[in-house]
Amino acid sequence: MKKIINQTDDILNEMLEGLSYAYSDLVTRVPETNVIAKKNISGSKVGIVSGGGSGHEPAHAGFVGTGMLSAAVCGEIFTSPTPDQVLEGIKAADDGAGVLLVIKNYSGDVMNFEMAKDLAEMEGIEVETVLVDDDIAVEDSTYTAGRRGVAGTILVHKILGHAAESGKSLAEIKEIGDKLVKEIKTLGVALTGATVPAVGKPGFVLEEDEIEFGVGIHGEPGYRKEKLQSSRKLAEELVGKLKDEFNWKSGDTYGVLVNGLGGTPLMEQFVFMNDVKALLEEDGLVVDFKKVGDVMTSIDMEGLSLTMIHLDTPEWTEALKAPVTTIAW
Amino acid sequence: MKKIINQTDDILNEMLEGLSYAYSDLVTRVPETNVIAKKNISGSKVGIVSGGGSGHEPAHAGFVGTGMLSAAVCGEIFTSPTPDQVLEGIKAADDGAGVLLVIKNYSGDVMNFEMAKDLAEMEGIEVETVLVDDDIAVEDSTYTAGRRGVAGTILVHKILGHAAESGKSLAEIKEIGDKLVKEIKTLGVALTGATVPAVGKPGFVLEEDEIEFGVGIHGEPGYRKEKLQSSRKLAEELVGKLKDEFNWKSGDTYGVLVNGLGGTPLMEQFVFMNDVKALLEEDGLVVDFKKVGDVMTSIDMEGLSLTMIHLDTPEWTEALKAPVTTIAW
Repeated sequence: MKKIINQTDDILNEMLEGLSYAYSDLVTRVPETNVIAKKNISGSKVGIVSGGGSGHEPAHAGFVGTGMLSAAVCGEIFTSPTPDQVLEGIKAADDGAGVLLVIKNYSGDVMNFEMAKDLAEMEGIEVETVLVDDDIAVEDSTYTAGRRGVAGTILVHKILGHAAESGKSLAEIKEIGDKLVKEIKTLGVALTGATVPAVGKPGFVLEEDEIEFGVGIHGEPGYRKEKLQSSRKLAEELVGKLKDEFNWKSGDTYGVLVNGLGGTPLMEQFVFMNDVKALLEEDGLVVDFKKVGDVMTSIDMEGLSLTMIHLDTPEWTEALKAPVTTIAW
Repeated sequence: MKKIINQTDDILNEMLEGLSYAYSDLVTRVPETNVIAKKNISGSKVGIVSGGGSGHEPAHAGFVGTGMLSAAVCGEIFTSPTPDQVLEGIKAADDGAGVLLVIKNYSGDVMNFEMAKDLAEMEGIEVETVLVDDDIAVEDSTYTAGRRGVAGTILVHKILGHAAESGKSLAEIKEIGDKLVKEIKTLGVALTGATVPAVGKPGFVLEEDEIEFGVGIHGEPGYRKEKLQSSRKLAEELVGKLKDEFNWKSGDTYGVLVNGLGGTPLMEQFVFMNDVKALLEEDGLVVDFKKVGDVMTSIDMEGLSLTMIHLDTPEWTEALKAPVTTIAW
């Protein structure tokens, strides 16, 4: 394992120190916690909080800032943050109008965020949750009942962050969130496994010419291994599966996010986007939002995911396009 | 080689198609060229143009937009763009106030950009150049006489882009640029070599536990190979060498850019930034600008570079912090 680190036990702390130092204009680390909070929270707006295990950078701390998250709670690598840490995130984000938690669907996250909700409510903070389960690869998985939450989560941050910034109430934001998560779907392909530093070797190994569709962002098994194919063939697989789920028809409006898993150069992500474009044009879709880059990674995993969002609500498109002040959007 | 591509000969074209499709709100591909230009160039401002071989994404096309580059000229992978392509970039960027070319110091780039300057002047466009040679690793190199131009180039884009946006003249921007490049220095460390797709294997190979200081962004040899060390030790080496060059003293003001080379997770870049912070604090520096992320990559190379800029000119700090509308700043 070749990594630029010191002691593996210190990675989370040192990463958060480095991040909050580098972007001290935008964010602050809540003292003695693993919470990265927006600077100068004010204005009696609803707080939007997300988080989960680390190793998915820039998610989630990279999306803290005006117009997106109020705070991100960072667990150890691939490990859910504890309820008391999530509670600290809620407290940092609350400004009297309540807090909405955006939870990726992993059993540990669901349990710990729900416990933190209860703890916060005991302290008089109103809390709602939205569960993201956008990964269509498999039902149930190593750490999940149902479908996993992956890169589509970032679009939830963006749209709900905009709703909060616009002054919507907690109940309104919860309602948008519950509708939204049904309209976001993701599917990925891995070329290599991710190496958790404390483990020291990849979580799974693929042959030199082998890829795996539907691998989770912690290396959970996917649905099919195959020989490496062209970008065009990969796009056909991912777009085809998403099409089956959405059941779109010509003239429908969608947004597209191509997300690198950490070890995949932007060059390849753009080549892939070009292939996705051709397929969506063939189907006559209107694509009104597009983004390419690493937003939800799996440490150093090579591969990418394709997220699509059905955009028949103009407010969502507007929210996706609105400017924000974050490290990584 | 595992890459998400189609034919290796088509990568540049397909990447530019994917990029200009994904970010059609911000940029446009000049028809029948490899030039990515800012949308809606107007206002009689000086155009800022950069470019070079591809494989360094998001550089340079990712920095096209209001407040940074007017156009980026994209060569084949690790290959300088031809003079006629650079001329197309100049034409796209010119709005009557002239064009400044930001050139990384590689012999091919210098020759082709200078030839394009001559061609443009024959067509009546005023052109100036600024040469970036921030890499302190070695004098002369595989493709370079003198020092190489690397990640510091992005800070030049930012500061000169701001000067152009502020309405400064070509002569004024050239003067700022010539001063600026003397105050920017970079040093990197590689953990692995980059794989050019058409070659199919890494340009150089390091042992499992070996790193190399001072490797260029095309895999040019560095100055020392060693066993992999802690992030802290790496920071000591890079900061130490930069200190020798700048000869800074307590109270001096600097900016810091930690740049991932393509295959290095943000997690490690933030851990490294934390170690840099400690060393700069020890020396009593005032650090008034900080940035972490992949800005000048070498395809899939693992490793990072540290760029520092001496900021005793408040206008430069202001320029670095000014908002821009680009894909990747």
